[in-house]
Amino acid sequence: MRAVIPYKNENAKSRLSPVLSKEEREDFVELMLEDVIKALNDAGMKTIDILTTSTEGIPKEFKGDLIVTKPGLNDSINEYLQNANEPILIIMADLPLVTGDHIRKITSVSEDVVIVPGKGGGTNILFIRHPNEFTVKYHDCSFTSHCEITEDLDKSMHIFDSFLASTDIDEPHDIVELMLHGKGKAKKYAEKRFGSETGKGRVKISPLSKLSSFI
Amino acid sequence: MRAVIPYKNENAKSRLSPVLSKEEREDFVELMLEDVIKALNDAGMKTIDILTTSTEGIPKEFKGDLIVTKPGLNDSINEYLQNANEPILIIMADLPLVTGDHIRKITSVSEDVVIVPGKGGGTNILFIRHPNEFTVKYHDCSFTSHCEITEDLDKSMHIFDSFLASTDIDEPHDIVELMLHGKGKAKKYAEKRFGSETGKGRVKISPLSKLSSFI
Repeated sequence: MRAVIPYKNENAKSRLSPVLSKEEREDFVELMLEDVIKALNDAGMKTIDILTTSTEGIPKEFKGDLIVTKPGLNDSINEYLQNANEPILIIMADLPLVTGDHIRKITSVSEDVVIVPGKGGGTNILFIRHPNEFTVKYHDCSFTSHCEITEDLDKSMHIFDSFLASTDIDEPHDIVELMLHGKGKAKKYAEKRFGSETGKGRVKISPLSKLSSFI
Repeated sequence: MRAVIPYKNENAKSRLSPVLSKEEREDFVELMLEDVIKALNDAGMKTIDILTTSTEGIPKEFKGDLIVTKPGLNDSINEYLQNANEPILIIMADLPLVTGDHIRKITSVSEDVVIVPGKGGGTNILFIRHPNEFTVKYHDCSFTSHCEITEDLDKSMHIFDSFLASTDIDEPHDIVELMLHGKGKAKKYAEKRFGSETGKGRVKISPLSKLSSFI
């Protein structure tokens, strides 16, 4: 078994640009990556690969393999899967609420494919027991695509139900969940940058500086 | 053990008003309530109370008790808890993704208090073994309040981690989760009203009529 983390640092997370500058977003995604690597390490994952288009923004302590590919998320992951001869856990780098316990549970499921949905139809984690038969299709409601691909291959499937693992940090309001439920480095970074506004509806992040509210 | 559902029908879910009219929202919340009651029934919950300020919008088939109270969510729930002499499950009416399996798991937890967080710091479900010692405090990041109240009472606590149970339907983008992951009456209603727009980011709902996109 091995884990692979698709990763982009340069000008990443453009949907967070209303609340974080380019440099801040690059720092933030590196910290989220560190949290994901920690969860994998906590679960005893021995081999971790990072699939990236650039060697920028990789944590210094990272001890796994860095696989530099051409742009194109689906093509690079599918090439990776075709060459794999052991179960593969594909985990996104923007999941700072994932813990070692989640990883242990996901990789203990007996079904052929485990899907952890992301918010809004995404796929946060895919665990594939026979990866060279599988093709990923991220973007355009990938959760539905991955369910269909699994069914077309006549493989058994488990949808893993976790609020923490399903919370990818893509939009400003996601940072509220990180501040409320996080424990790692990305949470600490967010706490230095943001306060919170409460009321009758959902909590919103607010700037800690004296600038006016930005969302 | 009994379950209580705080419920408001008249002009409910104002944050859905960009995509549903007042009458549509009232129909929709009644269907979500029916889905929640079904989950409770599926779990074998024998006694279900609905706590409401009006008898409007209650499903005809509902066989439990209707408790009509003055406005004020916290006051009415706290009065209910003070008079309770058995474990109480407080479940919000806007959780159409909750299943009987969730309810069974939540009520099987051994800790004194089980909290299912809502999106943005809310509290979707509270299971309280000794309710007359407990005080609820909804609104203003109630998740944090309920954690603190439990700790102040020196009670043991379990945070229940479920994407489906943590997804309350409050804002237009929540309806995407209902359409993707739902199975009940509220999902069917949403599918008749909305289509979906996919792309590189999260799926968005779109109108099925020929009107222009509304979010």
